[in-house]
Amino acid sequence: MKQPPASSESPFPSADQRRMTREAKRAAVLRAAVQMFNERGFHQTSLDDVAARLGISKPTIYHYLGNKDQVLLECVTIGLGQLIDAAEEVRCGTGTGADRLAAFLTRYAQINMDDFGRCVIRTGDEALVPESRARFRELKRQIDTNIRDLVAQGIADGSIAPCDPKMLAFTIAGALNWPARWHDPEGDESPEKLADQMIRLLSKGYLPR
Amino acid sequence: MKQPPASSESPFPSADQRRMTREAKRAAVLRAAVQMFNERGFHQTSLDDVAARLGISKPTIYHYLGNKDQVLLECVTIGLGQLIDAAEEVRCGTGTGADRLAAFLTRYAQINMDDFGRCVIRTGDEALVPESRARFRELKRQIDTNIRDLVAQGIADGSIAPCDPKMLAFTIAGALNWPARWHDPEGDESPEKLADQMIRLLSKGYLPR
Repeated sequence: MKQPPASSESPFPSADQRRMTREAKRAAVLRAAVQMFNERGFHQTSLDDVAARLGISKPTIYHYLGNKDQVLLECVTIGLGQLIDAAEEVRCGTGTGADRLAAFLTRYAQINMDDFGRCVIRTGDEALVPESRARFRELKRQIDTNIRDLVAQGIADGSIAPCDPKMLAFTIAGALNWPARWHDPEGDESPEKLADQMIRLLSKGYLPR
Repeated sequence: MKQPPASSESPFPSADQRRMTREAKRAAVLRAAVQMFNERGFHQTSLDDVAARLGISKPTIYHYLGNKDQVLLECVTIGLGQLIDAAEEVRCGTGTGADRLAAFLTRYAQINMDDFGRCVIRTGDEALVPESRARFRELKRQIDTNIRDLVAQGIADGSIAPCDPKMLAFTIAGALNWPARWHDPEGDESPEKLADQMIRLLSKGYLPR
């Protein structure tokens, strides 16, 4: 009787392989969804559109992520998670308050020009269902608190001019949020270069020194 | 036979009175619509909601303004018109480029915290139908060109530090757009005071001078 070929590869995926495949599929759905929300707007994009782009069915999206509100919440949570990670890195770093503020703002601006960060900025609180909205606001508040803390540290060590940290946090965050509306990811200007230019303008002001 | 009372007032409105009544009704519909779009979001507001708030019927709104897309286009056109008027006033004024830039930015920030300006900022291009979108973008481009021109004049007369006028225009406009998302019209902080604080931060920068 013929023996089956000896092989180290089982045709049956292991639990680990199944988990990785599942995560890769989930990530692919999120990436397609966030890009379409950013291009067309959340309200102009249906999960049927997202499914069609991936060549899968809408129930497959439900299976991996849930309904459209849940997909949006997941997208903005990823973007806000990237910002919170960047804040944590800076928190553990060294330098004056102004140095660390600039380091954080650089990452902040770059993330806001990337898919998930862009979605955070383009999503108004009112687009989310009430329970997701509370979570969204809470995460945004964390980022805002981080910026205010860095500003306060800079004022304390003399590297930032005395000011109202809340007002400065709103002003610089607003400036660095706006590229999520106008920066063309396919365009010539790199997010790194734009971030540097904007932070230089915000730190030095437009009046001659 | 009894004579009717002598009166200078005809019970029949004149053509002028009819026009004024019509304009007042149209303005009332626009004001209710823009406030509801700002509070709930455009996609979460129906013309039935707007009609209900005014105690009128949806066909009355169609009669005065057209469909929901046309109402939105009218709202953002009013907001952009206010900004264009402010730019024209500054264009005819005197002072250095920096002085005139600050004068325009003050009005720009205040208008963005008012009903129609707020709607301009909260409305993504993708929310408008294609023909309205082109008009919306064209008007926004006019404002942007005005800011860049003032920056270029300030660089030329030495009142603004040398920089890329396009980048500076995007950076300061972004900062001053953002209150349309967070400023509470019912809150304690007046738009005038906020505008002044933000423009001081943008003009002087956050590093000590």
